[in-house]
Amino acid sequence: MLIQDLYRKIFTTWFDEYQNETRYGIKGKLIITEQSNYQKITIIETKKYGKALLLDNCWMTTEKEEKSYHESLVHPALSTAKEIRKVLIIGGGDGGAVRECLLYNEVKHLDLVEIDNRVIELCQEYLPGLGGIAWEDPRLNIKIKDGVKWVMEAKDQSYDVIIVDGSDPKGPALGLFNKEFFQNCHRILKTGGVFATQSESPKTFLNIHLEMLKIIRQIFKYAEPLYGNVPIYPSGYWSWIFATKDKPRYLEPIPQRTEGIKTEFNIWSINWQRHAFKAMPAYLEKLINK
Amino acid sequence: MLIQDLYRKIFTTWFDEYQNETRYGIKGKLIITEQSNYQKITIIETKKYGKALLLDNCWMTTEKEEKSYHESLVHPALSTAKEIRKVLIIGGGDGGAVRECLLYNEVKHLDLVEIDNRVIELCQEYLPGLGGIAWEDPRLNIKIKDGVKWVMEAKDQSYDVIIVDGSDPKGPALGLFNKEFFQNCHRILKTGGVFATQSESPKTFLNIHLEMLKIIRQIFKYAEPLYGNVPIYPSGYWSWIFATKDKPRYLEPIPQRTEGIKTEFNIWSINWQRHAFKAMPAYLEKLINK
Repeated sequence: MLIQDLYRKIFTTWFDEYQNETRYGIKGKLIITEQSNYQKITIIETKKYGKALLLDNCWMTTEKEEKSYHESLVHPALSTAKEIRKVLIIGGGDGGAVRECLLYNEVKHLDLVEIDNRVIELCQEYLPGLGGIAWEDPRLNIKIKDGVKWVMEAKDQSYDVIIVDGSDPKGPALGLFNKEFFQNCHRILKTGGVFATQSESPKTFLNIHLEMLKIIRQIFKYAEPLYGNVPIYPSGYWSWIFATKDKPRYLEPIPQRTEGIKTEFNIWSINWQRHAFKAMPAYLEKLINK
Repeated sequence: MLIQDLYRKIFTTWFDEYQNETRYGIKGKLIITEQSNYQKITIIETKKYGKALLLDNCWMTTEKEEKSYHESLVHPALSTAKEIRKVLIIGGGDGGAVRECLLYNEVKHLDLVEIDNRVIELCQEYLPGLGGIAWEDPRLNIKIKDGVKWVMEAKDQSYDVIIVDGSDPKGPALGLFNKEFFQNCHRILKTGGVFATQSESPKTFLNIHLEMLKIIRQIFKYAEPLYGNVPIYPSGYWSWIFATKDKPRYLEPIPQRTEGIKTEFNIWSINWQRHAFKAMPAYLEKLINK
């Protein structure tokens, strides 16, 4: 172990993500840090947000501030797809998206395709609440595989919902941002299905966000971004893109769909979803719908 | 001058705002720092956002990232009040809110009541673009006065729009957060007018935000919060409260009102305003409308 890491295990220090002349830091103590086959995985204990996960020194998720991201990614898709029997998550090794998907009784089969088994193992050990009972759910099938290859090999129209929950476009997540990947997602999505992906910060990573939307719009008949606050991500402003083949379903939740869900939502509501897609700041409206 | 400040003038270092076990930093070089009669004023040069202003070590505004805050504070009020002949801004010494208000030809008289003349002087010198030509506008009347006293002494129904653009509730801005202050704002606002105030972060300062809304709702007939992203503020998630006496005007912009404005808006649009008030995350909806 590095001397520096030993120090960070004993004393509370700042852990920062650095992006383009800015940094966002949370005070904490190091629990574990290791280099997996794909990335540097770090877990720390913080007073502010409970345990927190960093990949390659970027904030991924925390125990107490993760719903703003996971609910925004999952529910606009799950509440609107024609059917939601078979769901695919690419990435998402922390378990948060899995948990949100399995709230729906209508989901019968969920494939979680995560490239890095160590992310799953370490999150199950140190942030078990993120997946919670979903980790034991018989509907969940964990595949330690490359998501890019998975969608390449999957059958046409085999999923009702596809959710891409990857990290930034470098390292293991790089392949989740190109045209061929989205084309395969389109091919394996059922006609009444919904495709969802995190799509980076519309401030800090504006160009990546716009490029993703452009490509996805070339492939899917309908695609629209959704914007919201995730305090631990660069600029605090994040985006998700939803896409469909038949009609812009993601705009209008099916009311019965969520009726059986007992969990209290933190972000999502029918009302929120209806208006959040439309509350687009002028600078994005101009760039996107010109 | 302190040795530390000399160092920060010569070398690029991190300037951070610390809040509750988190920090947000921007790299820059110190231009000037001084203790005024009311607060510590610091101006730095950054590559990311141009020049930036901190008050008591908290980020206030920057040249390149200020519209997200100022447009959200000003236009939902100015675009909806019955008339906008006479406008009052409390605080706002950087000039950003002044500039946005004076975009409207219908504004005939604007009182800027700022307690700290040094904020105005330093912003005019180092961040002149924030106020821009508005600083020379004959409609502008700068009063170096305590805003709390100003609203206490102002006549009943004397303003069409009142905008409170203060810092966090400590130091010179403390008086801008209590019941008596809001009661006076109510008293001096015309019946068809709109009252607007920044209302802190609905994440980092949730309790302050909720308390403000509660008090304002006790005094005004209608009051609603608006949420949006301001990257340089704690959590990146900020709020503004709008209140009226006769009907919830702030929900529906008057289309003709903004037609003559040549400036391209960064955040505000009629569509944005209509939906942004309604795109309320579930946790806030529960806390606010229960």
